[in-house]
Amino acid sequence: MPEFARFTDLVRSLPATVPFVGPETQEHERGRPFRARLGANESAFGPSPAVVEAMTNAAPEAWKYGDARNIELRTALARHLGTEADTIMPGEGVDGLLGLLVRMIVEPGTPVVTSKGAYPTFDYHVAGFGGRFVRVDYRDDREDPEALSRAVRESGAPLVYFSNPDNPMGSWWDAETVTAFARGLPDMTMLLLDEAYGEMAPPGTLPPVEALIDRPNVVRMRTFSKAYGLAGMRIGYAFGAKETIAAFDKVRNHFGMTKLSQIAAVEALKDQAHLDTVLGEIETARRRISDIARQNGLTPLPSATNFVAIDCGRDGDYARAVLGELVARDVFVRMPSVAPLDRCIRVSAAPEAELAVFEAELPAALSAAAAVSRPA
Amino acid sequence: MPEFARFTDLVRSLPATVPFVGPETQEHERGRPFRARLGANESAFGPSPAVVEAMTNAAPEAWKYGDARNIELRTALARHLGTEADTIMPGEGVDGLLGLLVRMIVEPGTPVVTSKGAYPTFDYHVAGFGGRFVRVDYRDDREDPEALSRAVRESGAPLVYFSNPDNPMGSWWDAETVTAFARGLPDMTMLLLDEAYGEMAPPGTLPPVEALIDRPNVVRMRTFSKAYGLAGMRIGYAFGAKETIAAFDKVRNHFGMTKLSQIAAVEALKDQAHLDTVLGEIETARRRISDIARQNGLTPLPSATNFVAIDCGRDGDYARAVLGELVARDVFVRMPSVAPLDRCIRVSAAPEAELAVFEAELPAALSAAAAVSRPA
Repeated sequence: MPEFARFTDLVRSLPATVPFVGPETQEHERGRPFRARLGANESAFGPSPAVVEAMTNAAPEAWKYGDARNIELRTALARHLGTEADTIMPGEGVDGLLGLLVRMIVEPGTPVVTSKGAYPTFDYHVAGFGGRFVRVDYRDDREDPEALSRAVRESGAPLVYFSNPDNPMGSWWDAETVTAFARGLPDMTMLLLDEAYGEMAPPGTLPPVEALIDRPNVVRMRTFSKAYGLAGMRIGYAFGAKETIAAFDKVRNHFGMTKLSQIAAVEALKDQAHLDTVLGEIETARRRISDIARQNGLTPLPSATNFVAIDCGRDGDYARAVLGELVARDVFVRMPSVAPLDRCIRVSAAPEAELAVFEAELPAALSAAAAVSRPA
Repeated sequence: MPEFARFTDLVRSLPATVPFVGPETQEHERGRPFRARLGANESAFGPSPAVVEAMTNAAPEAWKYGDARNIELRTALARHLGTEADTIMPGEGVDGLLGLLVRMIVEPGTPVVTSKGAYPTFDYHVAGFGGRFVRVDYRDDREDPEALSRAVRESGAPLVYFSNPDNPMGSWWDAETVTAFARGLPDMTMLLLDEAYGEMAPPGTLPPVEALIDRPNVVRMRTFSKAYGLAGMRIGYAFGAKETIAAFDKVRNHFGMTKLSQIAAVEALKDQAHLDTVLGEIETARRRISDIARQNGLTPLPSATNFVAIDCGRDGDYARAVLGELVARDVFVRMPSVAPLDRCIRVSAAPEAELAVFEAELPAALSAAAAVSRPA
């Protein structure tokens, strides 16, 4: 049967795709579960017990729509960030908010600046609104603010993406560099500053809220999916100048957040002690993953996130083979998509039981990969 | 501070708005809670206890992203509907799915046919993508398939909205009429058939799945927000020809569903006994609301939904005054937005305790409204 003929030309030109193939999809296709879930940078350390209790208590109330204005969550976030509630817009994960911001700026042919190998879901949304990519290279495994700035000026792009700390490499810039990059952009260019991994970064990585809140062309995004252990509840938030944040009300799905997500997020913010515990666990896990890598002759990259990019020491084909062999051994991991980043695999911080599976399977995976992918 | 200057012309032209003001927003502004929550057609009869238990059990797993492909839910829905999983697309409520379907078809200036006073969130999405409205009148408090068909042919619109049963009037058409309307549309026009209230309608209201599943230009939408009592979990689904359904994968937020929502929906489908109980409660509540209306000299309209539209017997100003007086007495209700539908207020089915509050407050609300809004 042919596709409906009156979808827009843009939609008809798009592939039916998914930015990431989920572990459940892979398990379904493989016919068996993974033994270690280390690919999606989830937090297997889990949400706060107080969050679980709050969700449990709220479950019988799931018949009520959530508050369309997210008043309690925005108030709690405002207190947490030291800003005003009208500078904050929660949404269905950073992914959902990315899509909305892209929609507000990108039309067919609009140039958009990002880095080669940066977050695929951003690219998915840009493609979905017909944007034209202007891509710059990573430099020393970091996004390159100078090159991004130059590309913005040369292309006149109204939108540039920058992730700090970075996914998929785990690298980061100091707050001063990020602030200077942001403030140095033309007023006509929106900076989408993705700080999904911000809570795990060393002090001095995130610009203070007040450093950029006066810029109508800066939107920062954070999430409860990573350090707060609530990926499955889809809660992200954008913050920035209130006039810019108000624009989300023009296009968002106002009743899109689940009531349980709103409750979970408010409760998660209250339990900063749990967050601190998890941050300690993540640090321990990063060291453990790095040790495993080194024991196998590989090079772990420094990380300001809840994952470690491991340089497998050869090319992308080899790293892809290593990844394939790990997956075949029931270890779910992912890796960057483009050279030279794709010499690495990316392993999420997780409790010891899962890292032990990774440790046990990595040597055989490396041997098998070496057998199928010999160096030139 | 000025708005960011490079939002698209379309976005700059849109108001920052919300299709519905939520009860929490009103409570926040009033400074006190409602005593009866009868305005959003939620199901205060609640979700199945088995659903609550499943969500409770799953809460500690909320750190995992949900399955991007919704495999379990689609498989369960396919079994429930007697169709194939690839003809079904779950999403973040019907509201979210409406937005995606509109996005796939509507560009600035695209004509879109709908009824005056039909679902405001559909209109919100059409406006959000720059569509041009072609509106037809309700006829005898029902959507008018003949007039909609004619408007489609005259405007060449690629999209028409039809709700069965209807919100806000509670009216409905038989399956044969709906099927004939759908099959009679031009191939170049997509029918968005909103069946959010379908479970509550009399037998013979919903066309059988197979009656329309072969039409690439028909997408039907249903929800877990109404009869299943899960409005707060944001779970809707679209179903139709698989080529059409596949197109959602081009534009949707693949990881947008919460894991708990996926689990809740699968469990809700299993407990059809709970659904039957709720349907009985809804019928009892409809009769009760109708009796209260008649006791006060008002005329309840027949309803195939979980609400009753009550004709207040005069014009929109009077009905708006009645609504205002009910809200002032802590009874949350809503009403249609345009004449002649706006001679009615709309009251949701709910447990007796809340309906008793409505019964107690309605006489005073009517007296007060009569005092401020005298007939000509």
